[in-house]
Amino acid sequence: MAQDQTGQPQTGAEALVHTLIAGGVDTCFANPGTSEMHFVAALDRIPGIRCVLGLQENVVTGMADGYFRVTGRPAATLLHCGPGYANGIANLHNARRAGSGIVNIVGDHAVAHVAHDSPLTADVDALVGATAEWHAFSTAPERIGIDAARAIEAAGDGYGQVAALVLPADISWSAGGVSARPAVPRPPRVPDPAMIGRTARALRSGRRAVIILGTPAVAADLHPLLAGLAAATGATLMGSSTIARQPRGRGRLVLPAVPYPVDDAIARLDPFDVVVLVNCPPPIGFFLYPGRRSLLHRPDADVLVLSRADQDAAAALHALASELGVAPLPVPAPPAAPVPELSGPITPAGFAAVVAEALPAEAIVVNEAITLGGGFAAVMPHAAPCDWLTVTGGAIGGGLPLATGAAIGARADGRSDRRVVTLQADGSAAYTIQALWTQARESLPVTTLLLNNRAYAILLGEYAKVGAEPGPTARDMMSLDRPAIDWSAIARGFGVAAEAVATLEDLAAALKRALSHPGPMLVDVRFPQEG
Amino acid sequence: MAQDQTGQPQTGAEALVHTLIAGGVDTCFANPGTSEMHFVAALDRIPGIRCVLGLQENVVTGMADGYFRVTGRPAATLLHCGPGYANGIANLHNARRAGSGIVNIVGDHAVAHVAHDSPLTADVDALVGATAEWHAFSTAPERIGIDAARAIEAAGDGYGQVAALVLPADISWSAGGVSARPAVPRPPRVPDPAMIGRTARALRSGRRAVIILGTPAVAADLHPLLAGLAAATGATLMGSSTIARQPRGRGRLVLPAVPYPVDDAIARLDPFDVVVLVNCPPPIGFFLYPGRRSLLHRPDADVLVLSRADQDAAAALHALASELGVAPLPVPAPPAAPVPELSGPITPAGFAAVVAEALPAEAIVVNEAITLGGGFAAVMPHAAPCDWLTVTGGAIGGGLPLATGAAIGARADGRSDRRVVTLQADGSAAYTIQALWTQARESLPVTTLLLNNRAYAILLGEYAKVGAEPGPTARDMMSLDRPAIDWSAIARGFGVAAEAVATLEDLAAALKRALSHPGPMLVDVRFPQEG
Repeated sequence: MAQDQTGQPQTGAEALVHTLIAGGVDTCFANPGTSEMHFVAALDRIPGIRCVLGLQENVVTGMADGYFRVTGRPAATLLHCGPGYANGIANLHNARRAGSGIVNIVGDHAVAHVAHDSPLTADVDALVGATAEWHAFSTAPERIGIDAARAIEAAGDGYGQVAALVLPADISWSAGGVSARPAVPRPPRVPDPAMIGRTARALRSGRRAVIILGTPAVAADLHPLLAGLAAATGATLMGSSTIARQPRGRGRLVLPAVPYPVDDAIARLDPFDVVVLVNCPPPIGFFLYPGRRSLLHRPDADVLVLSRADQDAAAALHALASELGVAPLPVPAPPAAPVPELSGPITPAGFAAVVAEALPAEAIVVNEAITLGGGFAAVMPHAAPCDWLTVTGGAIGGGLPLATGAAIGARADGRSDRRVVTLQADGSAAYTIQALWTQARESLPVTTLLLNNRAYAILLGEYAKVGAEPGPTARDMMSLDRPAIDWSAIARGFGVAAEAVATLEDLAAALKRALSHPGPMLVDVRFPQEG
Repeated sequence: MAQDQTGQPQTGAEALVHTLIAGGVDTCFANPGTSEMHFVAALDRIPGIRCVLGLQENVVTGMADGYFRVTGRPAATLLHCGPGYANGIANLHNARRAGSGIVNIVGDHAVAHVAHDSPLTADVDALVGATAEWHAFSTAPERIGIDAARAIEAAGDGYGQVAALVLPADISWSAGGVSARPAVPRPPRVPDPAMIGRTARALRSGRRAVIILGTPAVAADLHPLLAGLAAATGATLMGSSTIARQPRGRGRLVLPAVPYPVDDAIARLDPFDVVVLVNCPPPIGFFLYPGRRSLLHRPDADVLVLSRADQDAAAALHALASELGVAPLPVPAPPAAPVPELSGPITPAGFAAVVAEALPAEAIVVNEAITLGGGFAAVMPHAAPCDWLTVTGGAIGGGLPLATGAAIGARADGRSDRRVVTLQADGSAAYTIQALWTQARESLPVTTLLLNNRAYAILLGEYAKVGAEPGPTARDMMSLDRPAIDWSAIARGFGVAAEAVATLEDLAAALKRALSHPGPMLVDVRFPQEG
């Protein structure tokens, strides 16, 4: 439970800042407005929280997601009223699917002002209620410390949650603030012994089994144990489609994800009589299609939840191994690397090979390049060890903010040496391109590879499933080539160095320069156009 | 009531498109995703709706707002699932405050898929319910025509509303679609005769009165009547702070808005014993400040609602004039124009003078430049007649999308000759800068004047009210100069011609070029830096 921390007279805003600091929050991603000025003033008076400005709120919330995925600690955000919060909802959606902990502070009108329905008044409670996993509306400066402590505890609960605290301006500016000391967040819950036993029996039964792993189940230190389980039981290991952070590269287990195309996923999962879920949802298609089904495993398969998302994945896997008498094994060597062509026009396979070869050790790779990123599965087992972050919730525009927040998280952990490499498709880049400015402002070691095919290529594939050739309207809705976007010009406009390449040789040379550039740099990687 | 239009077999998507066309919807602003592919395919098969792509949903919804403000007709939008809708909420908020009619089509998952909580599933009903004035969830292809007809009727109701129809993918792709013909939307309601009488008595009482006017009360054809009312009763005329479209320039009434700074507004309204409201809310501060009040008129003033937002403003004003025996008068000549310095560094007064002088007749001016736009009050009475659009809801990032949609609306009305001039502050430009690409794609005659002071200047003013000097954190949260943004580079990156100016002479020359440029052009207007 939250406790009072100090009896000093202070405003609500000051009590809030003291409580955030007491709760270990060291970074606040912000796009403040009028109603947050007293909070900003309190941040100035009380040292301990670093503020990072984003030019739009979806950049702000995406940065907080990236920060959590790298540090494991919730950052705060500062957002302005209902519309400001709304601007950040899409990346909070991705954060929720990633299981990221975030303490959103949503500044709002003074309580008495709301009834007058001034122009900027919106139903912020409904917006927060529809999108955050925990939310509260602070109603008195005496309560702000306790409310904030609970928000911090909620954000850190288990593996992490999206929390939102609405802070009316008058609660912020009024005297009588009382800060609090957040309790240590509750750890992930203990797994269910009955499920350990049931899963062990299923894996011993001789039926064909797949074990699908969520984020905490793919931590690098579990890989030897997972290798042991797979070898002893014959089970296939796969990654969930919503893994927030996956260790990849040399020495790490190869964990193919459930494929995105529904027919591929159904075919891939068809052999399995038993589906074991470790901290992830069952395999579900992103979308339902005519004549297809939502759940991708065989309908008669036995689905066993070894541990739920809020349970301790490591404890569950250790208990399962113990029940089965399985010991860790060295991670098996991957199949030989492919030898793709490394010159000439840029292909997905060639792109992946060039990037994987150049990745520095302990890089953080952020992937928002679904249609062009398909070449990495073959080459990543031979790359330097890295962490691989994806846009977990399918809301596009996550990549650039995630990368920015990841770099700030690495810096907060004293690991400014970690290079962030963003695989960023062009259509989704356009959503949150403003994030480049924060990369420049904070001098972050982020290399953005802008995968430029001048199309919403994923939609071209989706449209094909309609069973018709795209007509002029459809083509117009999926092409980005009229006019072609000059991503280098835009990057330079936001203060980020940039160059464009159209061959694999030039890509390799540009990547070398970009990876040794101390600050951010963007490489516009021009793929042959699709569609 | 909606009626069936055809008995032809069709999908739900086709029935929807037929219904939109039957309801007079000729434009669809779109950023589609997988779940909307069948709707896009139907748009290809059935001619009659022009689709305009936006690179992010807040651009899409802001364009629909601008389109309505110019044409008076609702456009459709096409948005993708909960996160896509969320991205567009801020400009729907502005549209709602403007009284703009919009038919939002929100594609969502197939009904049966939602229960599986796939990664992109969000609580779209709650988001739509919290933000649209009318909403429905279509549940069968047989119902889609009637649902869409009701959405169109709602969007056109009175002076216009924000409507949202959630369209599950399976309703879209299934056979059995039945289209409908929307009824003619209900006109604004008849004003209340008792309020006409009460207002007439108050205006005859000799007490000092102010008449505050909302959007439909400032239509140009009402200006002679308003001039007559002011002359006969001695009442002062003012504009509400949320006017969606105001005729300004030579021959139009000068209608000063209630000032934005609360203390200025209170002082301005203090003399008045009677406050008459015509289709607008009472004067409310954007924000409440410590020791101030929300309502800006004198607390003991008599507040009379001549007509509510949903009532017929012209009928109310005519009835009032009739009751008072007032005849229209020629619009009085404005005070002599100021003679500001038109050379040297750019000042707010000089900027306004140069722009007002250059405005072509019947231009559409979009204003999102609060802190630097203050010079226009003095010079606009002498400018060419124009329509003046503002960001009505205080959600920043409205300007560029509004301007884009306004130009598309003028084109749809056969008025491609109308030039759109956007007064766009830099901080808010960064929110929706992607709109420039649509301006280039559609070859729109939009001239963007980027008022560049490298700061969130409005926040510097707001922070001053906290009563402290900004410290390093506060300064960092309000400055945009590290790095300075090269707006010309960004504009060119999105395919828009651009140049930068730092003196009034250069501004005048650049403006001349921009206004004769057939497509869009951006002028980066470099004000001396504040803060």
